[in-house]
Amino acid sequence: MSILIKNAYIVTMDKDGAGEIPNGFLLIENNLISKIGSIDSIGDISGDNSGDADSISADTVIDAGGAVLMPGLSNTHTHLGMTLLRGYADDMALQSWLETKIWPAEANLTAEDVYYGSLLGCLEMIRSGTTAFCDMYFFMDETAKAVDAAGIRGCLAYGMIEFGDLEKGNKEIAMNEKLVRDWQGKAGGRITTMYGPHAPNTCCQSFIKRVKEAAERDGVGVHIHVLETEAELNYMKENFDMCSVHHLDAVDFWNTSKVPILAAHSVWMSDGDIRLFAEKGVTVSHNPVSNMKLASGIAPIQKMLDAGVKVTLGTDGCASNNNLNMFEEMKTAALLQKVGTMDPTALPAKAVVEMATVNGGRVIDSMTGVLKAGNKADMILVDTSKANATPIFDVYSHLVYSAAASDVKTMIVDGKILMQDYNVLVMDEKEIMKKANECALSLAERAKAK
Amino acid sequence: MSILIKNAYIVTMDKDGAGEIPNGFLLIENNLISKIGSIDSIGDISGDNSGDADSISADTVIDAGGAVLMPGLSNTHTHLGMTLLRGYADDMALQSWLETKIWPAEANLTAEDVYYGSLLGCLEMIRSGTTAFCDMYFFMDETAKAVDAAGIRGCLAYGMIEFGDLEKGNKEIAMNEKLVRDWQGKAGGRITTMYGPHAPNTCCQSFIKRVKEAAERDGVGVHIHVLETEAELNYMKENFDMCSVHHLDAVDFWNTSKVPILAAHSVWMSDGDIRLFAEKGVTVSHNPVSNMKLASGIAPIQKMLDAGVKVTLGTDGCASNNNLNMFEEMKTAALLQKVGTMDPTALPAKAVVEMATVNGGRVIDSMTGVLKAGNKADMILVDTSKANATPIFDVYSHLVYSAAASDVKTMIVDGKILMQDYNVLVMDEKEIMKKANECALSLAERAKAK
Repeated sequence: MSILIKNAYIVTMDKDGAGEIPNGFLLIENNLISKIGSIDSIGDISGDNSGDADSISADTVIDAGGAVLMPGLSNTHTHLGMTLLRGYADDMALQSWLETKIWPAEANLTAEDVYYGSLLGCLEMIRSGTTAFCDMYFFMDETAKAVDAAGIRGCLAYGMIEFGDLEKGNKEIAMNEKLVRDWQGKAGGRITTMYGPHAPNTCCQSFIKRVKEAAERDGVGVHIHVLETEAELNYMKENFDMCSVHHLDAVDFWNTSKVPILAAHSVWMSDGDIRLFAEKGVTVSHNPVSNMKLASGIAPIQKMLDAGVKVTLGTDGCASNNNLNMFEEMKTAALLQKVGTMDPTALPAKAVVEMATVNGGRVIDSMTGVLKAGNKADMILVDTSKANATPIFDVYSHLVYSAAASDVKTMIVDGKILMQDYNVLVMDEKEIMKKANECALSLAERAKAK
Repeated sequence: MSILIKNAYIVTMDKDGAGEIPNGFLLIENNLISKIGSIDSIGDISGDNSGDADSISADTVIDAGGAVLMPGLSNTHTHLGMTLLRGYADDMALQSWLETKIWPAEANLTAEDVYYGSLLGCLEMIRSGTTAFCDMYFFMDETAKAVDAAGIRGCLAYGMIEFGDLEKGNKEIAMNEKLVRDWQGKAGGRITTMYGPHAPNTCCQSFIKRVKEAAERDGVGVHIHVLETEAELNYMKENFDMCSVHHLDAVDFWNTSKVPILAAHSVWMSDGDIRLFAEKGVTVSHNPVSNMKLASGIAPIQKMLDAGVKVTLGTDGCASNNNLNMFEEMKTAALLQKVGTMDPTALPAKAVVEMATVNGGRVIDSMTGVLKAGNKADMILVDTSKANATPIFDVYSHLVYSAAASDVKTMIVDGKILMQDYNVLVMDEKEIMKKANECALSLAERAKAK
């Protein structure tokens, strides 16, 4: 199975390689990129002198018509099962939002709800350019099945909360172990797993240490919320006389020599915390829309990048965003750093695109996030024949400040076309939306009844 | 000429009237809304007992298929001629951005550039749900011609800068007087005008006073930038020992008893300035995306609303946004107030929709911004058959936090259908984009050569 994409403006995100290729072609064989280069100067970039793109044969040929071909976006922190709770409760104080709306709804979630919520989330991601995501939630078998069916790439963790309760901790860790055992490397490698201790203020230090050991034993990463709110910071200081980062550093949690660690939010980071994350190689998932909507605060992202921290982007769940739109997340990330630091040069466009592609791809699958020969074929075509794409002076500025998720017209993941010219090929959209609506209404009824 | 829209979820934004009408119809006769009501209970709302919607005859019938029917959005501060400068320069410090990029480009702008930039802007607004806008720029005849051709509603001001130079001031005010004379009430009333003194730090007090008198003489409003940056505040304090608001209050500028005043940005407002705007009835145009991108600051919008200031929304020009997307602007407005005040209940969804419809409409044309019988027929249909619109628990939350500009499928302005089912009926999109691209490239070449 081979796919040739031609007449594309390729944004490779390959720092050491081709950069941008204005009139480019890309050849996919099976699930890998086999050739990439300029139609104008064949051989220079593809390392192949066999002739021009027209002489390359492929089972399927896609004429990009000048659209931008780029790596698919990676959403490194979300809760896909919560997609059914999109708009269920907004504009509320955090504690009453959780206690009166979100937790009662979650207590009523069924496996079927999470399955259709996850499928709906996958559909929204396909339509908006996200080829891969990191999730932390429950009923994760259902999310795994949805990812398998949808054809995208998912890195799944079971969200563990134990509040220092040993028995609950045992049950929680067993659930995550089962997820790793059942799904690691499945769906042709599209599904990977992580361990998901919820947060330093909802799981005790010894439990998180134990989780880390399990992750190292199984060779999978750890995905954790860290310092999302000032309330967490205050709680940790009151109880442990230090912040979450140093509390976990005391048990060498942040050591990434064996497995990666993905720290979601990381809003209330001190300069010392940032240095520690940089030294240890921790990856941060920045969620600016959720941090603004819940009034959590402004994460010091430019400082993190300056210190060498690997920063990626995530939407968080649909209850606090309320969508999975990574184009919105890119623009918001750039805008928020600028106003947060009162410096319009903070977090420039290209750095944001790197966060959403190169950096995000690396934490999910090291063979994604960059378009180059040998990498997995995860990519999108972004339509530029629209009013909001006229004119384009700089492609990174365009992608961050002007483009919309709805400009994504074609998506390929692992060498398979999931959407072509705005037609989703892998799922029945109407049926999924119908089922998801039914589940959401029923869930809201049950949550109200309790 | 009559149009019947049926099977719509109508968001009237009529506080004293119908609110939301889940299964509604709306009848347009000529350029006015003549009937609006529920298909389920005809007569209750429309004040007409003649029968159900099916019995109402119309030249054109649009089946909304459950889509949201709402007032068109009003973008109350932009510079349409700058649409050609979309992405021309980003991520730069304000002064070098202006001096090395924007001003040299503007010095090379031709009438043709502004015409195609304005047409491109109109096209983008039609595609993204904006039925009316307030502009301040130059070559305003060209923008007026574009508005006339595009079919939307525009309130146009000539941007005057005189820096205390009497001769320049005379020329500038003559240009604005000509705009008012030539275009006020033209295009069947779709084009209105204002006077546009640029800002309190680029026009002297006596000039601004003179402008206000001309506006009162002509019976049109005044559109002015106020306290966009801390630099303006500091300049005014250093030179006049008071801020821009009080400096102009000294000549009774803010008195709106005769004509409305539209104050763009208003970022660096003190509590006293806010009280004054509330007392005087000044309308503020909040531009959150531009304020973030240029690192201008966070305007105290929730405080303004609490004090009774009329607040509307604007995108600013494409050089500092970089699009004209009012859905993005609505979401960003809500998010920015929440994180700016560290209060997730700040600026809730419905208040944002009011800013973009009721409040924005009122400043452009008092018969727009609310869907009710007797008002002008300016409205949009927002598609809800999409993944990002599933589920919908609250329609205002949906419009602000989940919806995208690309969900706008149909637009009617002044009783004329400009876009139907995603097909723009009033202009040749490809031709406009081609011309705009040519103008933008040529402009960039000329700006570089100088």
